[in-house]
Order: sequence, then C-alpha cells, then structure tokens
Amino acid sequence: MAELTPSETTFRADGRRPDELREVRLTRGWLDEAEGSVLVEFGRTRVLCVASFTEGVPRWRQGSGQGWVTAEYAMLPRATNTRSPRESVKGKIGGRTHEISRLIGRSLRAVIDVSALGENTIVLDCDVLQADGGTRTAAITGAYVALADAVAWGTDAGHVRPSRNKPVLTDSVAAVSVGIIDGRPVLDLPYVEDVSAGTDMNVVVTGSGDFVEVQGTAEGAPFDRRELDSLLDLAVAGTERLARFQADALAQPLSRRA
Amino acid sequence: MAELTPSETTFRADGRRPDELREVRLTRGWLDEAEGSVLVEFGRTRVLCVASFTEGVPRWRQGSGQGWVTAEYAMLPRATNTRSPRESVKGKIGGRTHEISRLIGRSLRAVIDVSALGENTIVLDCDVLQADGGTRTAAITGAYVALADAVAWGTDAGHVRPSRNKPVLTDSVAAVSVGIIDGRPVLDLPYVEDVSAGTDMNVVVTGSGDFVEVQGTAEGAPFDRRELDSLLDLAVAGTERLARFQADALAQPLSRRA
Amino acid sequence: MAELTPSETTFRADGRRPDELREVRLTRGWLDEAEGSVLVEFGRTRVLCVASFTEGVPRWRQGSGQGWVTAEYAMLPRATNTRSPRESVKGKIGGRTHEISRLIGRSLRAVIDVSALGENTIVLDCDVLQADGGTRTAAITGAYVALADAVAWGTDAGHVRPSRNKPVLTDSVAAVSVGIIDGRPVLDLPYVEDVSAGTDMNVVVTGSGDFVEVQGTAEGAPFDRRELDSLLDLAVAGTERLARFQADALAQPLSRRA
Amino acid sequence: MAELTPSETTFRADGRRPDELREVRLTRGWLDEAEGSVLVEFGRTRVLCVASFTEGVPRWRQGSGQGWVTAEYAMLPRATNTRSPRESVKGKIGGRTHEISRLIGRSLRAVIDVSALGENTIVLDCDVLQADGGTRTAAITGAYVALADAVAWGTDAGHVRPSRNKPVLTDSVAAVSVGIIDGRPVLDLPYVEDVSAGTDMNVVVTGSGDFVEVQGTAEGAPFDRRELDSLLDLAVAGTERLARFQADALAQPLSRRA
Amino acid sequence: MAELTPSETTFRADGRRPDELREVRLTRGWLDEAEGSVLVEFGRTRVLCVASFTEGVPRWRQGSGQGWVTAEYAMLPRATNTRSPRESVKGKIGGRTHEISRLIGRSLRAVIDVSALGENTIVLDCDVLQADGGTRTAAITGAYVALADAVAWGTDAGHVRPSRNKPVLTDSVAAVSVGIIDGRPVLDLPYVEDVSAGTDMNVVVTGSGDFVEVQGTAEGAPFDRRELDSLLDLAVAGTERLARFQADALAQPLSRRA
Amino acid sequence: MAELTPSETTFRADGRRPDELREVRLTRGWLDEAEGSVLVEFGRTRVLCVASFTEGVPRWRQGSGQGWVTAEYAMLPRATNTRSPRESVKGKIGGRTHEISRLIGRSLRAVIDVSALGENTIVLDCDVLQADGGTRTAAITGAYVALADAVAWGTDAGHVRPSRNKPVLTDSVAAVSVGIIDGRPVLDLPYVEDVSAGTDMNVVVTGSGDFVEVQGTAEGAPFDRRELDSLLDLAVAGTERLARFQADALAQPLSRRA
Repeated sequence: MAELTPSETTFRADGRRPDELREVRLTRGWLDEAEGSVLVEFGRTRVLCVASFTEGVPRWRQGSGQGWVTAEYAMLPRATNTRSPRESVKGKIGGRTHEISRLIGRSLRAVIDVSALGENTIVLDCDVLQADGGTRTAAITGAYVALADAVAWGTDAGHVRPSRNKPVLTDSVAAVSVGIIDGRPVLDLPYVEDVSAGTDMNVVVTGSGDFVEVQGTAEGAPFDRRELDSLLDLAVAGTERLARFQADALAQPLSRRA
Repeated sequence: MAELTPSETTFRADGRRPDELREVRLTRGWLDEAEGSVLVEFGRTRVLCVASFTEGVPRWRQGSGQGWVTAEYAMLPRATNTRSPRESVKGKIGGRTHEISRLIGRSLRAVIDVSALGENTIVLDCDVLQADGGTRTAAITGAYVALADAVAWGTDAGHVRPSRNKPVLTDSVAAVSVGIIDGRPVLDLPYVEDVSAGTDMNVVVTGSGDFVEVQGTAEGAPFDRRELDSLLDLAVAGTERLARFQADALAQPLSRRA
Repeated sequence: MAELTPSETTFRADGRRPDELREVRLTRGWLDEAEGSVLVEFGRTRVLCVASFTEGVPRWRQGSGQGWVTAEYAMLPRATNTRSPRESVKGKIGGRTHEISRLIGRSLRAVIDVSALGENTIVLDCDVLQADGGTRTAAITGAYVALADAVAWGTDAGHVRPSRNKPVLTDSVAAVSVGIIDGRPVLDLPYVEDVSAGTDMNVVVTGSGDFVEVQGTAEGAPFDRRELDSLLDLAVAGTERLARFQADALAQPLSRRA
Repeated sequence: MAELTPSETTFRADGRRPDELREVRLTRGWLDEAEGSVLVEFGRTRVLCVASFTEGVPRWRQGSGQGWVTAEYAMLPRATNTRSPRESVKGKIGGRTHEISRLIGRSLRAVIDVSALGENTIVLDCDVLQADGGTRTAAITGAYVALADAVAWGTDAGHVRPSRNKPVLTDSVAAVSVGIIDGRPVLDLPYVEDVSAGTDMNVVVTGSGDFVEVQGTAEGAPFDRRELDSLLDLAVAGTERLARFQADALAQPLSRRA
Repeated sequence: MAELTPSETTFRADGRRPDELREVRLTRGWLDEAEGSVLVEFGRTRVLCVASFTEGVPRWRQGSGQGWVTAEYAMLPRATNTRSPRESVKGKIGGRTHEISRLIGRSLRAVIDVSALGENTIVLDCDVLQADGGTRTAAITGAYVALADAVAWGTDAGHVRPSRNKPVLTDSVAAVSVGIIDGRPVLDLPYVEDVSAGTDMNVVVTGSGDFVEVQGTAEGAPFDRRELDSLLDLAVAGTERLARFQADALAQPLSRRA
Repeated sequence: MAELTPSETTFRADGRRPDELREVRLTRGWLDEAEGSVLVEFGRTRVLCVASFTEGVPRWRQGSGQGWVTAEYAMLPRATNTRSPRESVKGKIGGRTHEISRLIGRSLRAVIDVSALGENTIVLDCDVLQADGGTRTAAITGAYVALADAVAWGTDAGHVRPSRNKPVLTDSVAAVSVGIIDGRPVLDLPYVEDVSAGTDMNVVVTGSGDFVEVQGTAEGAPFDRRELDSLLDLAVAGTERLARFQADALAQPLSRRA
C-alpha cells in the first residue's frame, strides 16, 4: 500500500486511507454480572458481546467430556437507519442472522481447546446496538475478548482445566471487512461504502496470521484473482492491528464484582 | 415519610432510605440516527429506549387521520444474572414481555395528542441491557424522554402539527415501583428486594401527579387498604422526583446529526 | 353510595344502580369428568372455568415437594360481537391473552397453600363462551369455585394433604371491574360501558376483604387520588357480594360421577 | 335390523340397541349475538356450533361473485377425560383438527348454493365442550342447523339472494358414526366403544338420503364388502332420524335480539 | 365393466378405458442408503417413498415392547403446475398434508405386525416429485414396497423378530382413486379428471381384497348407493392389479450396498 | 497439478486423483411442467433443480421494472445416511438451509441481467434427493442450467426482453468444493472426505473464470496463504470443466410439452 497519493487519501467518505481502520474501542466488563462482556466499536458500529459460561453441552455432544462454544448474533430493531421488525415478533429468525451466528461460533471455536472446558458451553451473545457496516467483523473481534474473559473466569472457578501442554485459547482471532470501491480495494467498510462496493469480503484471521474464514462475494461484477489477492493482503494487515488492540485490552486488569 | 430513624435508613440492601430512589441517569442521543434515543439507568438497571418515527398506522386506525404510539419491550439474553434463551430463537414472545410492552404503550399514549401526529406511528423500543429490578418503570421513564425528542424531531420535520390550543405532549409521564418488605413500604426496588417483597406495585404517574396506571400485586399475603395507601404515597413522591429528572434532561440541548 | 337519586339509577345502559352487579350465576359440575367445572355468568358474559388436577409441576419447581396452580384464559372466536381469528390458527397467543392468564393464576395462588398439593398442578382453563365485558373478573370468580371443587376432589383422592393448622384454601378470592363513566364511578361494566369508560380498573379481593391485585388504567384522562379511592370502595363492596355467591354455590352438594 | 334378541339389546355399554342413537339435543340461539348458534348434544358429547356471517371471501375466490362456507373445529383442553395442551399454546394445529375442520366444511358446502351468498363467507366454529365420541358427526349435524339460521339471518338482512328456482340450502345434511364391535355393526359410538371398535366409519348423508362423505377405517382387521354394506345401512337409517331432529328444531321460532 | 363400446374407450383425456390404470412403475433401491426406497409412478405422478428404520418409538408407546410405523407426505414446491410455497418456509404444515400423512400411516399399519419390530419405528417419507392426480394412492402403493424392503433389512439385521406363526407383513396393501365423471365411474384419475369429477374416492385395499380405508367425497352432487357400489367395484379390481405389480417388483432381487 | 505420482492417485477413498471431479450428470427436462428442471448428479449426490417463472417481484423491488432471481435449498429427510426431521414439521428452517439458499441465489444473480426479466421472479428450488457431499455446489451448477432453460422459455413466451447489447445471461456459473485432506488439497469432496477435511472451501466461478463467491472455512487448524492459493487453483480448474459440462448439456435440444 506504501506511498499513497493525496487523491487516494481522500476518496473515502470519512477521509480514511484505503488501508486504515475506523477508530476501534474495546470496553471490557460492560455488564456487571456476565463472565465476559465487551462493548466493541468499529467507528459508529457498536456491538455488545457477552460471554455466558453455562453448564451442559448440546445433546449431540453429551458424554464426550468436551465443551462447546456457540454464538447468537442479533440486531436491535433501531440499530439501523430505519427500524426493522423484531425477529421475536415475527416468530422466526432470518437467514442473515443465522448465517452470522454460525460464522461467529466457528471463528471462535478455531482458537479454543474445547476439551479443556469440561461439559460446559460458552455462549457468545453479540447484540448490535448500532450498525454502520462491519457488524459481523466487529462482533468476532469483540467476542474473542469476551471469550478470553470468560475462560479466565472459568479457570479461576475451576470449571476450565487446561491441558498440560496447551493453552485453552490456542491463539487470538479477529475479523475485518474488505471491499472494492471504484476499482480500489479498501479496508473496514462503513455502511455507505458497503452498499456501493462491487465486492465484499469478510476475513477472519488468527493472531499468528492464518485464515479461519474467507468469505468473498461479488455483489456486482465477479472479481478476478489479482483483486482477490490484494483484498487478502489488506485484510491480513487489518486483522494484525486488531489483534494488537485485543492484546492491549486484555492486558488491562478487569475488576469483577463478587 | 419525614423523620426516619437510623434503623429505617439501614435495613435496605444498598443502605437507601425507604423513600429514596436509586441513582437515576438519563442519557439522550445515545444512538446517532434514531429520532429519539435515551439510555436510562435506575441504579444498575439499564434500558435503551429508542423512538422511531415511522410512516403509517396500524390497519384498524387507517383513514382516521390520527397517529399512534406503541412500544416493544425486550431483554437481552444476558441482561439477567443467568442467561435466558432469546425469544426470537424460541419463536415466540413470552407473556411477561407482551404485558410490559402493552403497559409502556398505554402509559405514553396517556400524555400525547395522537391527532397531532398525522397518520404516523412512533415506536418505542425498550431493550433492557442490564436488569436489576424496575425494568418496566425505568423503561417508561426513559421512553417518555425519547418520545419527547421524537416529537420535537417530527415537529421540526413538519410531520407533527400541534393543534392551536393544545401541546402535542399534554404532560410528562414517569413510573416507579414500590413494595412492602418486612412490613415496610419501600420505593424503587432492585432485584434482591423485588424477590423478597410481599407486595409489588408499579405506578405510572403524570407530571401533574395524576395516575395513568396502578398495578399492585400481592406476591405473598394480600395487602390491606392502609398499606395500599402508603404505597401510593411513596410512588407519587418518587415519580415527582423522576419528573424533575426528565425535565432537566430535556432542558439540555440535543446535538443531532444532519 | 347510599341514597341514590332517580337520575343516578337510570344513567346506565341496563338501568342498574352505579353500585349494582349484573345478575351472577355459578353453575358447578358443568362438565362430567373434570375435577372442578363451573359455568360463571356475569350478565351475558359466560365463562367456562375448568380445573384439572394433573400430576407433576413445572420444571423449575421439580423436587420442591410443592404443587402449583396455573391458568389459561382463551376466548372462543365468536364470543364477541364480530368473529376474531383463532389464536391456534394464527399460531401465536396475543398479549392480552397472556396477560389475563397470568392474572388469573396469580389471583388463585394468593389463596391456596401449594405445599399441600404435593408435586401436582391444578390447571384452570377459563374459556370465554360469550364476552360482554368483565371476562377476566368473571373468570377469576368462577375459577375460584372450580379450584375449590378440585381441591376437594384431590383431598378425597388422597393427593392433597392439608397441613395440620392451615386449610388448603386459606381464603376465597373474587374479582370485579369498576370504571368511571361521565365522571361517575360504576361497578361491573358490560362491554358497552367498558368502551366508553375513562378509567378502567380490575380489582381482585379476598373473602376477608384484602387486595390481591389492583389494576387501574386511565383509558382517557388520568385519574386522581379521590377517584381512585371511590373506585376501590365500589370494588370492595362488589367483591364482598361475589364472595357470598361463591360461598352459597359451594354450600350446595355436588354430585360427581364415578 | 328388525327383531333384536335380548342379548343384542344389552351388549352395549349404555344398554342401547345396535341401531339406536344416543339422546340428541339441538339448542338453537345458544349465543346472543351470533347469526346462528346451536349447542348440539349426542349423549354426553357437547359441541357448540356457531355460524358467523362475514364479509369477503378467500383470496382465490375474490371476484367470482360467489360466497364460501368454511369451518373450524377445535376442542377445549378439558373436553376429554384428561387435559390436552391447547393448540394455541403449542403454536400449531394438529393433523386431526385440520382433517375434521375440512370435513365439516365440505359437508356443509354440499348442500348450499354458494352463488346466493354474494361475496360473503359463513364461518362455522365447532368447539367441542365435552367429548364422548362422535364429536365430528355431532358437529356436522349441529353446524347444519346453525348454518340454516345464518342463511335465514342473511336473507332477512338482504345479504343472501336466492336464485329464482333454487333454494339457498338445497338439502339438509347430518352425520353419524358407525362401527364394528365384537363383529356386530353398531350406530353412534361413545368414546368407550370407539376405542374398542375394529372398524370406525363416519358417514355424512343428506336429508334425501344421498352420501356426501363416507370415511371408513379399519382400526384393526380390514373389513369386507358385506360388513361395509351393513355399516352403510345403519348409517343411513341413523342420519334419517337426525334429519328429522334438525327439521323439528328448525321448525321452532327463534327469538333474536335486536 | 365387460363389453365397452367404442365411445366409452375414448371419453377419457388420455384415451384409457374407464377401468384402466395409468402406466405403473415401481423402482426399488432408488436411493443408495435407505433401508427401503421406491420411486413409484402412476403415469406422470411420481412419488419417492423412502423407509427409514429408526430406533425408538413415540413417547406414548415407550415400554410397550412394540414398534410403530408412521408416514410423512410432502410435495416439492414445483411438483404441481404452478409453484406452491414450501411448508417449511411458511412455518406450518397444511391440513391436506397432515391428512394424507395420517392416511398413509394407518394404511400401512393395517398390514404389519408391529409387535415384531421391537421398539423401533419405520418412518415412510413420501415426497411427491411430480403431481398429476392420485399422489396419495401412489404413495401408499409405493410405500408398501419400501416398507417390505425395510422389514427385510431389519430382519437380516436382527432388529425384526417375527413371531412363530405370523409373518411380520400380514398382507400387502395398495390404493387407487376412483371417481364419477359425466356420470360414469372411472379408475385412477389424473389431475385433469380429478378437478372435473363429481365424486372422488380413495380406496385402500389389502392383497386379499379387504378394505382398509374407504374415503369418498361428493365434490359436487351427493352420490347414491348404486354409484357408491360401482365405484367400490372399480377400486377393488384396480387394487388387485396393483397388488400384482407390487408382488412382481418384490420378487426381483434387490442389490444393496454395504 | 501436472505429474501425479502413483501414491497421489490412490489416497482418495474412491481412487480419484486429487484434481478429479466425480462423475457429473446433468439431466434436463426432468419434470414435465416446470420452465426449467435439471437433475444434477455429482457422484452419488443428486439434486433436483427446478426453475419456476413466476409473476411479480418481492415487495422491496416493486415498481422497479426489474425482475429477481431467488433460490430455496432443501433436503429430503432421508437424503442423508440417517433420517433428519423435516423442517416443515419442526416449523422452522435451520441456519444451514438459509445460508445455502442465499448463496445459490447470489451466485445466479451474478450472471443474469435482471432488468431483462420484467417484474417477474425466477425461483430456483434445489431439493437434495441424495446427499454425499457437495450438495450446494451441485445445486449451483445444476441451477444455472435450469435457469438457462427458464430464461429461454420466458424469452419464447415474450416475458423476457433482452436489451440490445447484452445477453440476459451474461455468463455461466458453476461451483465446486475443495478441501485439504492430510495436508493435500483435493477437489470435489464426497461426504466421507468432507468430514475429515481440515479446511473446506466452496468456490463459485463464472464461465470466464472470475470469482463470484469464495467461502473457505478452517474446520480444524487455520490455513495459510499458500494453502489458500493452491485450493483456489484447484477450484478454478474444476469449475472450468463443469462449465463445459453445462455448455454441452445446454447444446442439446430440449423437448418441451405444450
């Protein structure tokens, strides 16, 4: 990305460089009771990520001696610019909601040793309070931090028993969106860019730089191999910075009640 | 309530006097886009109240030329001490949720001239982020403020047309819980008191001190007329103070985005 | 209420005095098999209240050794003046249905010692066959009588074991509606009065005159303390008469099959 | 069936002859407001059949100028010996309920000239208050009478316009169950016989003796042609008597309110 | 039916004689894994009938030591001439689907000794791939063959234990539709005839010629006893031929994987 | 991939080379009535893809003058090795079903000019008859062919009006799965390989070799950039061959009824 010319620095709505993240904030301990709770903000996108340490595992996993990590993503009705009907009122969950919940769960399971959890489940609730693009990537990034706090809580409480040679969390995980706007690859798209992007990609990357998920979609014209490569480059650089934010946040002491 | 003896000041879990509210905060403009949005806090109870100004009215009201105000109350899964399943996942809304949504809607409609709204509906979404007792009363108290902001927005935008002699909001409205603990009436119960209270009452009162709703329930022993009277006294004094908090909050300028 | 002037005796649609109940009928044993079944009529309002003595308790109560009482309220599609769609066909239960079911259950639990029931549940089904106002208050009044019959059945059958010093039913319970019409408080409103009432209140009172529930709602203008007081006076007098009807009905022998 | 021997008269639980109906009662005008309402009793089976005259027709029939007749069958939770969960609470309607609703609708449509109804729908709600076998046949028999009252109401009100040469109701319709018990065909089975019958058949027959529906099911051993024939004979004789009860009931004056 | 005149041979849309079946095909082993799978074709109607041998029985049958046979009928969205919405998307199953599923299950249970199955359930999934009338009768006819294969599989695997004197399958079962078109009884109606038939009857008959189900419906004018008799004659002759097709199909060797 | 050593050719369960597709079959016109219908087989995986040309567009697109293409994916209950409950019976659609339906729809919309469709919707029903891995990729590959037939039908019928310079179908589209097994990238995984693959990727590619979707998931260890690159190479080569199969199939004449 090196040497950007002036015009490149200004073609984005909010004046960011193509490879620049929005302001990122990770506020731990946002709730008083939950085993882990993080308010994550990617610019105006705000997601409350709450980890609940719960006894038991899904039926198909019972008797395995292993735990599970799952996630539920949802949006408050007025998170978006116009109000959407509640899924609880409609009586069913939409396809997009299901798809993102599954993505978050898979991403987190990629970096945890579930055999250390005993037959317990950590549920990550990711509720979007305000949506301005990148809600799923913010959710994954924040949920990892909440998960880390819940694992620490479970370890202190004796529910989590790490194996001798392997940490419970084998790595960190973060996610970011990339896209192609007017032919140019850009990082971390807000809503206004998201709707105009020709290609939209969400990339989930571990702290050590490997891929957990690559989900790229041509919204308009299909994209070629060269474009795919430059999107992946951008995403890897972005998640590297997110991993640092996560590590910094987790380095702070967390005051817990009782 | 006057002269309280020392013992009276200390029998409550958090050391409050029987007639003392928890710390109340009303943060306006908590979301960037909504026509009105207020984070209301009654101690650790936190409810996000968002008013959406939407075109159209329910079918049974179409053609009346009048507007409508409605509310939807919901709780995030980990608002409480242990995680509850999402109503969207269960595919149906519970009785308590319905009941509180209806109460909030009725309370707000008591202080608004819906004929000034044109055929528009203001929807109040009250999402409990953290629950520590009194979520419905906090929701009503915060929702009124969000409603006031949405009415102001609608007036500026020309959607709301007040009649000549009557303001759109004819009064303010606030709510508080009262209950009997160990035979003593107390104001604004947190969860720990709520579960031990013999009688539980939610009272919705206008700024001018009249009743909109009185909902008293004997959880244990039925209550007599004298107890009912002292609960009503406490509630009226409490809502008077809440009305002042509302007025103060609305007296501040609200910076809006475009 | 004493001395009523002639005009007061005639302003109600059906010519009743403000403090007069509609004709009340309680027909026990309306079904052949149920442990308790009562057809209750408040004027043209007719509710079939059926008590079923069922084994087991809800999950959250299992292992407590105590029983439970719960209620389900519903309306036949043509109970009202125009046909309403069935909730079973719509696939979900409305807010009003939930709210009334919960009210009936709470009201009955206020007068029963559930520890005497063993781990059994008495379910009260209150199905409105014809609705002309006051369906929830008629339901509570009739359900108490059906409950008493089911308790007697359970005692005969050895399922209910009263404690030494305490009857299973600690009191009776009845309910009535009151409201303000043209500024005047009236008792037991039929549909035509209900829709025009400025304030509507349902009051649940025990046989000894204490309150179990007070639910007052300003449909139009908020009500003041003086109005609230006179509504409560009317309701207490009305439920006192209902308690006598209940006692009279239960004093009759009930012929049971099998 | 002629000459029955003594043993034949006593092998049924309630002492009826094989070709004898239970006591039949048809009470018209059971509700005050409905266009037609009949409480039908076949012994202890009691079904409330209510006809609602409603504006409009199903979407697929709009613009045809013709009306429609449809039915919804349901059972109160404690109509049976042990309480069943409500379909509204379960959130879906069972197969049996659907099947019977469809049967009742078809049976009634066989004897009405829907083109005389205009674009209106008569909905028959058949709610079983007490079930002791034969609920669907009682429902059809009672629903016809309620339908006749609703057609009369619609004719008086000018909504129904009979064609010149054809009555709106082209015939009457009634239904009865027949079955084989211990190898002997019997008429109108109560619950206790129903569960032990090897073959169970519901037959819907017009006033002039033609078949509208024949639904025979071998619950145990398949049945042969000779058995089928004798079941049909019994059913035709039974519905002939039911048609007389219907005619007698409809010959009485019906006092209507307003 | 004997001597048909030329005109009789040509009045049907596809030129068949009144008593002639459409071309019938039964393809066993259509799926690789299922315990029994048959593609049945009645002319253009194509139904995939799959038998799954599953452990366990419905709750109400647990502990009986006996097995169960049940069926689920469904239609692909474009099986019909115009696309119908999926029942999974609508979130509920229609009345017709329920009714046919129940019919298929009853029909098969009439010819199997469920006590030989142990506490296992054979589920018959009958999915209509293309619908041209007679889908339920084709489904029953094909499902019997799939059931026979599943029973053979279960016997080989040792799950099915026939009693000494009684085969597991006590008979075969097949079904066919008959109807009256222009006053003439005809066999095995395709869609185009089905919609114009005055009376429509589905008859389920065992291999030995006894009736399991007779379901006749007057779609237009009621039918008389003589018509009923000739329809039954046609159906018995038709199912006799279907029973031979079934026997022929089952006489072929079935190559199984694994 | 060039020069494969002998061991490489034999490590796969079915003896295929790492870069070899399973046997592919595309049978057009599998149903008699649908505008397009293709049975696609990737080895033992069989999906029926049916295109229905339907009038109208979703609400949010009305008035745009443009059409829409959407897809619904579903699996027959016994498509898999053990029977799964029907989503119609469970009353809700699972997350995986939603996710795949959305993927198929997006993939097809990438190669069609919806403005040529008028306000019509082509619905692609992809029902999996037998599942042996790669059901979503087979569905996309088959659905494209069914879509092409439906577009041809719509063009013949005058519903589709191609713009002057642009074909309605701007390209073809096909999909294939790739994965890493024992560290080696392989193409087109059957179920047995799918469950053991460390990384699983579905790639949707146009006939001209550009990407429409890239969805890669680390099931076990995260994957690095080099692995990602070789998976993409394999997928592009595989879809190139699938595009030829599609072209060959569409080059055949399709006999249509009516």
